[in-house]
Amino acid sequence: MSITKKSDDALPHVVVVGAGFAGLTVVKALAGKAVKVTVIDRENHHLFQPLLYQVASAGLSPANIAQPIRSILSKQKNAEVLMATVTGIDVANRQVLAGERSIGYDHLVVATGARHSYFGHPEWEEFAPGLKTLDDALDIRRRLLEAFEKAEVTTDALERERLMTFVVVGAGPTGVEMAGAISEIARETMASDFRTLDPNQTKVILLDAADRVLPFFDPKLSEKAKDQLESLNIQVRLGVAVQGLNADGVTTASDFIHTRTVIWAAGNSASPLVKQLPGEFDRAGRIHVTPELHLKDHPEIYVIGDTAHCVGPGGAPYPGVSPVAMQQGKKVAENILARINGDPASEFSYWDRGSMATIGRHRAVADVHVMKFGGLLAWLAWVFVHLVFLMSFKNRISVFLIWVWAYFTRQQGARLITGKRGG
Amino acid sequence: MSITKKSDDALPHVVVVGAGFAGLTVVKALAGKAVKVTVIDRENHHLFQPLLYQVASAGLSPANIAQPIRSILSKQKNAEVLMATVTGIDVANRQVLAGERSIGYDHLVVATGARHSYFGHPEWEEFAPGLKTLDDALDIRRRLLEAFEKAEVTTDALERERLMTFVVVGAGPTGVEMAGAISEIARETMASDFRTLDPNQTKVILLDAADRVLPFFDPKLSEKAKDQLESLNIQVRLGVAVQGLNADGVTTASDFIHTRTVIWAAGNSASPLVKQLPGEFDRAGRIHVTPELHLKDHPEIYVIGDTAHCVGPGGAPYPGVSPVAMQQGKKVAENILARINGDPASEFSYWDRGSMATIGRHRAVADVHVMKFGGLLAWLAWVFVHLVFLMSFKNRISVFLIWVWAYFTRQQGARLITGKRGG
Repeated sequence: MSITKKSDDALPHVVVVGAGFAGLTVVKALAGKAVKVTVIDRENHHLFQPLLYQVASAGLSPANIAQPIRSILSKQKNAEVLMATVTGIDVANRQVLAGERSIGYDHLVVATGARHSYFGHPEWEEFAPGLKTLDDALDIRRRLLEAFEKAEVTTDALERERLMTFVVVGAGPTGVEMAGAISEIARETMASDFRTLDPNQTKVILLDAADRVLPFFDPKLSEKAKDQLESLNIQVRLGVAVQGLNADGVTTASDFIHTRTVIWAAGNSASPLVKQLPGEFDRAGRIHVTPELHLKDHPEIYVIGDTAHCVGPGGAPYPGVSPVAMQQGKKVAENILARINGDPASEFSYWDRGSMATIGRHRAVADVHVMKFGGLLAWLAWVFVHLVFLMSFKNRISVFLIWVWAYFTRQQGARLITGKRGG
Repeated sequence: MSITKKSDDALPHVVVVGAGFAGLTVVKALAGKAVKVTVIDRENHHLFQPLLYQVASAGLSPANIAQPIRSILSKQKNAEVLMATVTGIDVANRQVLAGERSIGYDHLVVATGARHSYFGHPEWEEFAPGLKTLDDALDIRRRLLEAFEKAEVTTDALERERLMTFVVVGAGPTGVEMAGAISEIARETMASDFRTLDPNQTKVILLDAADRVLPFFDPKLSEKAKDQLESLNIQVRLGVAVQGLNADGVTTASDFIHTRTVIWAAGNSASPLVKQLPGEFDRAGRIHVTPELHLKDHPEIYVIGDTAHCVGPGGAPYPGVSPVAMQQGKKVAENILARINGDPASEFSYWDRGSMATIGRHRAVADVHVMKFGGLLAWLAWVFVHLVFLMSFKNRISVFLIWVWAYFTRQQGARLITGKRGG
């Protein structure tokens, strides 16, 4: 099919489910091409997920790290946005179902991401929220801030200990970043605000069943990150699996940790929508895709990002990180256009630019090929890279100003409790 | 009692319930004085209420107009902050009750504000939320933005009409400001973002049982405001009372307005806590106070702000606006100190600096004694006054930058849907 002017309805219809990094990259890469694109998401906004922990830890506001999908795509004439929850996929008839509505497609991209997984204990979620959406972040923020407020009021010593103990489960980047942020809120921001409570007595405990933090990083950097966490008074307990969890605390093999606030940053499981597609699934619920990123028997259905199990050159699946998602998005747009033109699809390969994780206000670790470094330099690199990648110009400037302000005043900007309160 | 150094516990204890404009002014005016102050609020933040409609209309973020009470008072050594819901007042024993806790006082200030009142129809609240707290504002924002999203999806013409019709009940400043903001979101911000929907077809209807808008303003300005509202395509229906209200629309004497979104900006009723105090109450639930702002038989209990019925020189009670609340706060601090020193308390008198209301992005009306003006000049005055009065320096700068940005780009900054979604 050649690219000539034709009415919208005659154009091939690409439906993208999910407007995270993967889905949005597909849509943007199809700008100006002779296709009609519909992107469906149940939220009205795209989220810059790497900074979500800063909303949870009251450093940033939701509007600093999220933008309406419609506004991101307002200038892209061939893209339409639908806010709806996709309830099913009719593979035989090439239809996406959203409640009573069905949307036909010629090419489908499923990029619905992952939720946290509780290793077969869904009942733990109530006591240990995970961090994937803005609402998750606002919920965690409310729990953190309320814990200090309640600790100030209580006259019961054990209750105060529970309230001032924060447990983060999972020592990947999110867990490390959350633990660092909580420790800094307590020691720097809250310390001046309380009269009877001493926020310096806050205990932050980072648990992981693995034997090191940041398992996807070079072992030397894991060691460095652990040192940096400990310098922030965070107890790092490795090789410790959670065996039980309730409103009063966390059970491990060796003890019971009294706490009212547990944050879950361990384990992902692919969005359940993908179960409706034909294929093989891995333990995390991700569907296997070909090197061209589509389903084995359905070259018109692509699955990418955290929802896809795509094997890299070493035989291991690519990790669920935003650079993989974005590069896959570009490849899918290429392959859709190739297929429309009758050309063969090409295989995905990942260009790993390195990884970074920040630990508190001016510590980080960076793993960039031959360069592996930690401390202030890594933190500055982290700030730079995140500012560059923040999608919208406006957000970038205001987030930068908020960071500069927070850096010099040691004040968090968004320490507001909103939303339904707990008991 | 002379002001000499003594231990905290020997100092007179002033308990302030409510950290709005009235309560916070009392606390700040007592800084450095020989009293111990405890301020109790069920929220952790002070809210700059005059700009709340901008959070509801997705122009500002919660953090732009709210600040943690602890952070406002962190440098005031004689003030303590408690986040708690006050459940009762034991007047005989001079105790404030908050759940299981009781806090003794020597002087009590009740400044718990007002909620909206539905004129004996509390069941209307579900369909027509009011605008008093950040959570109210985020709820209204969600309803507004979702209405457009749902209108884009629906194939039913009547349903689309319902979704694109917005009714604001009450034409005081909040109602006028909300109506103006909704009209501008639809025509300027959303117009570029939707493909199949035409947001220009949005209907905004402002209802009031009174015969003019802004009844506390000069009649000429009411006329001017009405003209400005109509120039924004807002239907202003005066002399129209709401007779019924459900999920499908609003019943008036003459017709039924099909709508899914109703915002309640009519009628206030004082916070119910005040009912526990001995005294006379007016129809809005406000308790009568003496000219010195305390209860008739209890000179140790002051009630101020929207909770108090305080008669001015003309015989009418002062209106529930922030300048009255703040000036009353100062007077109460004065009278408490006078009483401690054995001096007589003095009477409150209000210095009315004038009123302003904004209508959309560069229209407003201002009523400043001999000067009564409308249009761009009034809008610039409104912007200036609100920037000057925004409590914290940091908020002021970032709100100003957001306004400048929004003014030139016609984009709203915080168009995010968060929180529990409706059906």
